[in-house]
Amino acid sequence: MPSPTPRLTRFCVPPLAETTRRLADVASGRASPDLVVTGARVLSTYTDRILPERELWIAAGRVAAVKPNGTHKALAHAPSEVYDANGGILAPGLVDPHIHVESSMVTACAYAEAALLNGTTTIFCDSHEIGNVMDVAGVEAMLEDARAAPLSIFLTVPSTVPATSPELETAGGDLTAEKIGALFDRWPEAVALGEKMDFVQVTEGDPRSHAILAAALSRGRPVSGHIYGREFVAAYAASGVTDTHEAIDRDIADDLLDAGVWIFLRGGPPTTPWHSLPAAIRTITELGASHKRVCVCTDDRDADDLMHFGLDWVTRQAWKAGMTREQAWAMGSLHPATRFHQDGEIGALGGGRRADVVLLNDALEVRNTWYGGRLVVEDRKITPLLDEALSDRWVYPKAAYSTVKIAGDPPLVPKPPRTPAIANALRTALPGIVVEHARVALPRGETWEEIVAASGEDLCFVAVIERHGLSGPQSRVAHGLLKDFGLKSGAVASSVGHDSHNVIVAGKSEADMRLALDTIREAQGGVCVVEGGAVKAFVALPVAGLLSDKRVTEVAEETRRLKEAWAQAGCAIPYMGFNLIPLSVIPEIRITDKGLVLVPQMTLVPAFEEGREAAE
Amino acid sequence: MPSPTPRLTRFCVPPLAETTRRLADVASGRASPDLVVTGARVLSTYTDRILPERELWIAAGRVAAVKPNGTHKALAHAPSEVYDANGGILAPGLVDPHIHVESSMVTACAYAEAALLNGTTTIFCDSHEIGNVMDVAGVEAMLEDARAAPLSIFLTVPSTVPATSPELETAGGDLTAEKIGALFDRWPEAVALGEKMDFVQVTEGDPRSHAILAAALSRGRPVSGHIYGREFVAAYAASGVTDTHEAIDRDIADDLLDAGVWIFLRGGPPTTPWHSLPAAIRTITELGASHKRVCVCTDDRDADDLMHFGLDWVTRQAWKAGMTREQAWAMGSLHPATRFHQDGEIGALGGGRRADVVLLNDALEVRNTWYGGRLVVEDRKITPLLDEALSDRWVYPKAAYSTVKIAGDPPLVPKPPRTPAIANALRTALPGIVVEHARVALPRGETWEEIVAASGEDLCFVAVIERHGLSGPQSRVAHGLLKDFGLKSGAVASSVGHDSHNVIVAGKSEADMRLALDTIREAQGGVCVVEGGAVKAFVALPVAGLLSDKRVTEVAEETRRLKEAWAQAGCAIPYMGFNLIPLSVIPEIRITDKGLVLVPQMTLVPAFEEGREAAE
Repeated sequence: MPSPTPRLTRFCVPPLAETTRRLADVASGRASPDLVVTGARVLSTYTDRILPERELWIAAGRVAAVKPNGTHKALAHAPSEVYDANGGILAPGLVDPHIHVESSMVTACAYAEAALLNGTTTIFCDSHEIGNVMDVAGVEAMLEDARAAPLSIFLTVPSTVPATSPELETAGGDLTAEKIGALFDRWPEAVALGEKMDFVQVTEGDPRSHAILAAALSRGRPVSGHIYGREFVAAYAASGVTDTHEAIDRDIADDLLDAGVWIFLRGGPPTTPWHSLPAAIRTITELGASHKRVCVCTDDRDADDLMHFGLDWVTRQAWKAGMTREQAWAMGSLHPATRFHQDGEIGALGGGRRADVVLLNDALEVRNTWYGGRLVVEDRKITPLLDEALSDRWVYPKAAYSTVKIAGDPPLVPKPPRTPAIANALRTALPGIVVEHARVALPRGETWEEIVAASGEDLCFVAVIERHGLSGPQSRVAHGLLKDFGLKSGAVASSVGHDSHNVIVAGKSEADMRLALDTIREAQGGVCVVEGGAVKAFVALPVAGLLSDKRVTEVAEETRRLKEAWAQAGCAIPYMGFNLIPLSVIPEIRITDKGLVLVPQMTLVPAFEEGREAAE
Repeated sequence: MPSPTPRLTRFCVPPLAETTRRLADVASGRASPDLVVTGARVLSTYTDRILPERELWIAAGRVAAVKPNGTHKALAHAPSEVYDANGGILAPGLVDPHIHVESSMVTACAYAEAALLNGTTTIFCDSHEIGNVMDVAGVEAMLEDARAAPLSIFLTVPSTVPATSPELETAGGDLTAEKIGALFDRWPEAVALGEKMDFVQVTEGDPRSHAILAAALSRGRPVSGHIYGREFVAAYAASGVTDTHEAIDRDIADDLLDAGVWIFLRGGPPTTPWHSLPAAIRTITELGASHKRVCVCTDDRDADDLMHFGLDWVTRQAWKAGMTREQAWAMGSLHPATRFHQDGEIGALGGGRRADVVLLNDALEVRNTWYGGRLVVEDRKITPLLDEALSDRWVYPKAAYSTVKIAGDPPLVPKPPRTPAIANALRTALPGIVVEHARVALPRGETWEEIVAASGEDLCFVAVIERHGLSGPQSRVAHGLLKDFGLKSGAVASSVGHDSHNVIVAGKSEADMRLALDTIREAQGGVCVVEGGAVKAFVALPVAGLLSDKRVTEVAEETRRLKEAWAQAGCAIPYMGFNLIPLSVIPEIRITDKGLVLVPQMTLVPAFEEGREAAE
């Protein structure tokens, strides 16, 4: 039994099995509700309609009933509390079917604050990043964090750790089929396999990939995925993958749905390449597909974007793209709940469901949020109850605070080639997240300054340093050149370097690169901008080198300042794109601690080749 | 591993976890399918559309892919078999979310034949009747039967056995919360709790009823229900019940959906009171509710009706009532699969799903059925493969063949009252299944013949004899009078007497009643019509007194002949209605082995009272 004033977590609502009699008493009028929210309209995600003149009866943290407005006045005993909705719309809290908490660089407890402000009361989280750093221990630490959070957090077990192979990069995690199976068996909230992103290997029948699929399927757990390319859809679906969180256009969306793959329409902030929602939704609005197997999701969010581009914003985008308001909200609540077989608990205001409820205005903007029947957001501000819960966040174990294990002082800048050379450079350019392979002719020179100046190109150094303590007395480092990165001087660095999260440093000046790296080492993780021997902006990420342990509001502010410094430094791509430069599954060329990787050939190439070719 | 030519059951299709690599190979074109059904349109229950010019690739008993028509011709190796659909519509096999196999008086193995002819490849079966006779042993025997059947049969665990209490009737089963929990734990196909039909007790918070709900909910299993009356909907939903298989009109359908209760629209044969579908569907067609939480089901079928009024017929009724063809078919396939969280396996032709497929004409009539990729019905006839499987049916254990345990020779006709009396008679009349309470004035007389003649009423005797061997050296019997039953002479009797399944005998002649009872005793179960000392028609039901052990075609023919004799005998209600006369949960008056029960007061009244009142 919970103590009289338990910490606010999902466990504050007792299991339905223990409260059916009380709920029946309340719904029948024999007992009074704990709370009545009256004077409302109710958005039914079951029927995709807004019901006028209703009130919501809540007991034991659950929905006892939706009644005609004013019905509570006839009860023998008044409800403990009556709240006036003033004609607003009551709707179920949103359910995000696919997110990575780590992308926001906050803990699960901290993430809850932003989620609840956005009207999101449940998330299906793939803790893929911390798994890449700390293996099962990282996933389990985040599960503990999740259990302590004032938010309902389910796990979709990270499925593709490492993203490639030890030949191509050094990761801190190696989640085998056996380890994944054990996670399913130990954690009831592990309801599905997380995005099986190695879709090419899956469709090719790779044994390790399919053993991991089998670990989920043999336990009756659904499998999440992520796929590009219509030519892969059939074999991916045949392999048992039943969702994806992106469909870049109408036609692939159509293929996916008919192949039995749920689509989570990812609504990214409009300035990013993550906003395929308007294109994909045309399978419904133009081709007449039913919306019943379509959801919305956020996937990744910078901490500061969390506040402006939450799942509520995504549902509004779906509305704007042609769905009705009711359908759009159902795509963000009941549909994800149904996809993960949790529709008996969440996703709608049906009897017996958790009282995870939002109060909306007619523009679908969230005014209030009740989590398990308790008011946590009122008039767009968190309540003292939530503030208290957020002040006492779960603390990660000591091991999570020492994961940036860099040995020695690995050189950050390569020796200049003695002869004219061709650099296999990485060209970073928006839009999109592709890093182009640029073969850049380097003239002979004594120093890098001379060579770069003579090349006539915008070039800077990039280095990836192995940080899992797995490469001996001097940590392994790989060098390369970034083309058109735009950095004017100084350096930028990050301990978030997808997916293995080795440290990536880019810079014009070796000294500033060294300072950037040392700053990250000292703090055991972070993202920073350095110029002229000074740290201009820094977000410390001491937990697994990925997460701040501060509140989301603080991290959002730090992130905002970092982005400002980042832009002032001239960087052509945002730091989330920079963090993807080591992600050796996206074309065309990437850099890991093992060197430069060509994708999709999956081969290493040297940074410099002899030759006098012209740059491509 | 299955043997080379395994008996055709659901286990012939290996688990998806074991076949993903093969399916990926086939879908990618690296390996050839076992079967291609070409020249087809495909009904996508995911998007509620019919896709033109397609072909279906099947491997390992599953859908490998739906491809553009003719694609298989480009494969390096020809598929093992190519079947021409001649432009017909391929659709998923139907999924019946709520049926009682026992209502058809056949075993699960035998039921499969009719189901497959109707294009039904999966059923969610509530073996409530055999549970009432044989307790857990009966439920488990039927589960073994189900595992041996060429059909996918899931169990919704009987939840309300006995229907009332030992004070009101004697049942052979007593399924406590503990026994129900153990069934869930032992049988993975036990996916939900079966219809919790004691909705009044549930809404009143009855402890036994809620303990049974908790046995399911605490294990994450959904709860099926059955409810009448808008006033009960809120408390029923609050108690955790999430489906019902009837909504008698548009408005209760509306209430149910918005309260979070799936509706299975029951389409009964049009001459029965079970056909509420057209009324309920108006919540969609008139009130604009989404169809996404609406299914169709059959619930109960006489064996002969199985052939004409299967789930395919019900989907056509839904189409006729205003749904599109595609929506109607989805309501009979994907939606039930989704409701029970089996949509990764069945309900659609998505990749990796079981190849349970039907070939339809444009009128949604079933021409062919493939079960797990094997052709079992072709051009509306069963194939030799299915015929062979049906010839070798599972045999129930010996104990199931000796359940009609009647001791002594209980008197079947009461002594005539010596003085003028009032009979608490049971008036049987269509439409509906209510048995009216008729207080009939009986004048004084020496013999029943005199008394009945003088009463001027159509009266006959009815007796219910306890048959579970639980009432001592002479089995308990209760007597009463049926009014307006229409029987001209002789007797009718049945060992199917819902829900406790004591033997019910009605008759004009005590000798014919005795012969009817003896015929049933001798065969250990059955339904018969007797006249003038001869058995006019008889369906032997030796398994639990409920089921024939013959094939469904034979039982259908026997049933047809029984119905003929039944009608000729003059009976005003069909035998299925007769079997409900002991069901002491439906108003107004019922007869059990304990006597006459008033519903919903749930009190016993004597058959005869002193008095000289006029009949009501």
